[in-house]
Amino acid sequence: MIDVQATSVAPQFAIESVGVSALRYPILAQDDDGRETQRTAAHWRLGVPLAADRRGTHMSRFVAAVEAAHETPMGLAGHFAFTTALARTLEAEGASVTTDFTWFRRVRAPVSGHVSHLECAVTFRSVAGAQPVRELGLTVAAKALCPCSKAISDRGAHNQRSDLTARVELAPDATLGIDTLARLLESCASSPVYPLLKREDEKHVTEIAYDNPAFVEDLVRRMALRLSDLPGAVAFVAEAVNHESIHAHDCFARISHRR
Amino acid sequence: MIDVQATSVAPQFAIESVGVSALRYPILAQDDDGRETQRTAAHWRLGVPLAADRRGTHMSRFVAAVEAAHETPMGLAGHFAFTTALARTLEAEGASVTTDFTWFRRVRAPVSGHVSHLECAVTFRSVAGAQPVRELGLTVAAKALCPCSKAISDRGAHNQRSDLTARVELAPDATLGIDTLARLLESCASSPVYPLLKREDEKHVTEIAYDNPAFVEDLVRRMALRLSDLPGAVAFVAEAVNHESIHAHDCFARISHRR
Amino acid sequence: MIDVQATSVAPQFAIESVGVSALRYPILAQDDDGRETQRTAAHWRLGVPLAADRRGTHMSRFVAAVEAAHETPMGLAGHFAFTTALARTLEAEGASVTTDFTWFRRVRAPVSGHVSHLECAVTFRSVAGAQPVRELGLTVAAKALCPCSKAISDRGAHNQRSDLTARVELAPDATLGIDTLARLLESCASSPVYPLLKREDEKHVTEIAYDNPAFVEDLVRRMALRLSDLPGAVAFVAEAVNHESIHAHDCFARISHRR
Amino acid sequence: MIDVQATSVAPQFAIESVGVSALRYPILAQDDDGRETQRTAAHWRLGVPLAADRRGTHMSRFVAAVEAAHETPMGLAGHFAFTTALARTLEAEGASVTTDFTWFRRVRAPVSGHVSHLECAVTFRSVAGAQPVRELGLTVAAKALCPCSKAISDRGAHNQRSDLTARVELAPDATLGIDTLARLLESCASSPVYPLLKREDEKHVTEIAYDNPAFVEDLVRRMALRLSDLPGAVAFVAEAVNHESIHAHDCFARISHRR
Repeated sequence: MIDVQATSVAPQFAIESVGVSALRYPILAQDDDGRETQRTAAHWRLGVPLAADRRGTHMSRFVAAVEAAHETPMGLAGHFAFTTALARTLEAEGASVTTDFTWFRRVRAPVSGHVSHLECAVTFRSVAGAQPVRELGLTVAAKALCPCSKAISDRGAHNQRSDLTARVELAPDATLGIDTLARLLESCASSPVYPLLKREDEKHVTEIAYDNPAFVEDLVRRMALRLSDLPGAVAFVAEAVNHESIHAHDCFARISHRR
Repeated sequence: MIDVQATSVAPQFAIESVGVSALRYPILAQDDDGRETQRTAAHWRLGVPLAADRRGTHMSRFVAAVEAAHETPMGLAGHFAFTTALARTLEAEGASVTTDFTWFRRVRAPVSGHVSHLECAVTFRSVAGAQPVRELGLTVAAKALCPCSKAISDRGAHNQRSDLTARVELAPDATLGIDTLARLLESCASSPVYPLLKREDEKHVTEIAYDNPAFVEDLVRRMALRLSDLPGAVAFVAEAVNHESIHAHDCFARISHRR
Repeated sequence: MIDVQATSVAPQFAIESVGVSALRYPILAQDDDGRETQRTAAHWRLGVPLAADRRGTHMSRFVAAVEAAHETPMGLAGHFAFTTALARTLEAEGASVTTDFTWFRRVRAPVSGHVSHLECAVTFRSVAGAQPVRELGLTVAAKALCPCSKAISDRGAHNQRSDLTARVELAPDATLGIDTLARLLESCASSPVYPLLKREDEKHVTEIAYDNPAFVEDLVRRMALRLSDLPGAVAFVAEAVNHESIHAHDCFARISHRR
Repeated sequence: MIDVQATSVAPQFAIESVGVSALRYPILAQDDDGRETQRTAAHWRLGVPLAADRRGTHMSRFVAAVEAAHETPMGLAGHFAFTTALARTLEAEGASVTTDFTWFRRVRAPVSGHVSHLECAVTFRSVAGAQPVRELGLTVAAKALCPCSKAISDRGAHNQRSDLTARVELAPDATLGIDTLARLLESCASSPVYPLLKREDEKHVTEIAYDNPAFVEDLVRRMALRLSDLPGAVAFVAEAVNHESIHAHDCFARISHRR
């Protein structure tokens, strides 16, 4: 059977990245602190560069690599090692892998102490090759209360759900726990959110948010300040998006920083 | 060239609906009051029933019908007439067409009077055949402030963006304007939302929302009460969805009613 | 602290369903055959009817119920039992719960025998109350090759990815395995799809699809025929959606049937 | 009324971009060739950098700027001028605006000549400031037939819908028509797609796709080759995504190039 992908072609553009996307596959995700694993369904995007003189990559090897790895606990360090191995498997100079999944954090309602599990969106992004990258991405929901609305209104203040996202690039030997990063982000908001709140908790959340107003600009600056203090963070992007309760649109702010 | 779709087959299941979906096509949408038209990009889903003894429908005729209609102003009455004609074109006993698009309403900020254009999501749904349907669907964003949070908290009250949806089935001779229905829905919320608010407007919206708290249950009951008063409405579904600012999940309530 | 939700109100509309939606929570999903469980992240929508004389439901109890259940294996039978218990917890006449998640099936490439894991989208839907419902919903991707294109073309035939969906309502004592239903649906297509195919597998899939062309109408009728043979299925909806490779839109067909 | 946004704060992080996102607003989009305008509903994201010593931006001015512009024909040149003016309005050193909308192209079926309108997804992206950007983004659907499947199979060949995307950064004085770019992209595929095809057209599309197979790597290299020939293109990104008909996942390839 002929191997069409191996056909030689006239020299042309090298391909920056070619591979498989929108792949749903199970993952046994591991918090980088190593304390906890969670099995879930991840979205994978896996690619390799392709030299100008090679016509095609080996698409089935991407899936075979994920199949071989899917029952082993994988934190960000393991994800980077997986990506490095993928480059070899694909006979490529490098590889990049992005893996998105939902992680659940055990949280306690602030007054009643009721336990529930709060989703956060995690992204492991690794790049193997000349400029390696190990990046932990995380989005948490939180509550933002508008300082302007509070200051100018005789009563009340508009507030809304806000999505806080950090993408933190780590030094080779650094680790960063999902829960650690999630709590860092929540501490920048007017209040965290919780899946399960009794009335006494709802009173507490309402009042601390009122006492701690923050513009979207304040949110992202607080995030940047705390992210810049993280040991092992060589670069980060912080973004806050407020789903405004007085508009049908959102407000956003973003800070990128490299040490 | 043989016509495979016309091939006779052994008697088998009749098909409830077969046709074309996820079709993006321009529409010159008309408010049923006839005062205004807006050209935009709609999503179309068009189907017909297929008898048990016919193998296939004529897929290209669905698109040809939309092509022929796309430059003529189309309100809900015109949409129903289009659907009735589609049944004939497809040699079917009936037809059903669902058309979704964004409509913009000219609104004024409540104090400063600044003008802006606020999106709402409109659905025309028509069914031709033995049980004809003419339905106007509409979703508007609005603001909902929690009565419980207000009552139990010493200061502030949590509030959030809420999506209010009505699907109103109209009698054959009835009309219902998009703006009329949008204002009806907004009047059920703690406050409308606006694209453009100056500080004096923001103060106003904050305060009237604080003075007019509503649970998701209150929202949907107010909607049902007002929808049940609409002349020409033979049935409706009302649904409110609050994007809770104290949770990462939503709260919803739904009422269906047929006269 | 006052309980605003318990406030009595003037008689008004009863609410068909009120509760919590867009809730992400872990589930230990169980194939109804009981052979396998998979932990993953589900989307939950939980609601109860609310009588006309009660102002509000107890929102936190929905989340507490999911929290209490999330570590116990849950198949469709367990999901129905959960829904029945939820109605009692909420002091309501009934309850409805819809839970969506991704399930992975272990599949083998048809010639090489390579193993991989193929996603399918599962929905457990239960309604407790006067008209109870136990429904298994499933969407699988498959391959559809056009009979018309094959018949009229001198070479080749257009084919595309197709999404095949069944929603099967089961009798109280009936069971239906996820993998059983997935294989039933795949058997209606021109060919199954696989995450991992070597060249000999790709040749096989290409040729069997070419030998087994099917219109979207054929797909849905084959599905209906096989679903109507399922012991314990009291009703079903079958839908096929072809992501046409010669169009930017889709073609669909749907059959609903109740015994 | 106090202006909280103007409050001075201790020096801290400058903000890379702050503004408004997920804003739906009408646009009178203009093909840069100036031959045609289309009114539609766009998604807007508008941001400005914010110096370290300013607490907040003026959120309402973003919406006011779009409101003031929405009835004037806007091509990419006008979009860049709008962005430049926005920086002044917001008293910022620069501004960036991304505007996404659906544009319809009048196309003819290849044999029958039937006319229909085919959607494409357009993005105008402008950056004003020290490093100005004028970028036209475009995604078209097309058909890709697999060379490997064709070569190794005794009959048929798998093919699928493919999304071809180009983002082309233009020199200040350059223009690039939407239809020109769309035809360039389509010419790289195994075949274009059409909304409306009669049987003779379907035969034609099937056969020319069979005669013109292309890997996802071939697609993106053809795109890069033609984009690199465009006068006035200072940089581009080309990406092809095949919605594989033999898998439930996609294959992708990407090339970035700067002159």
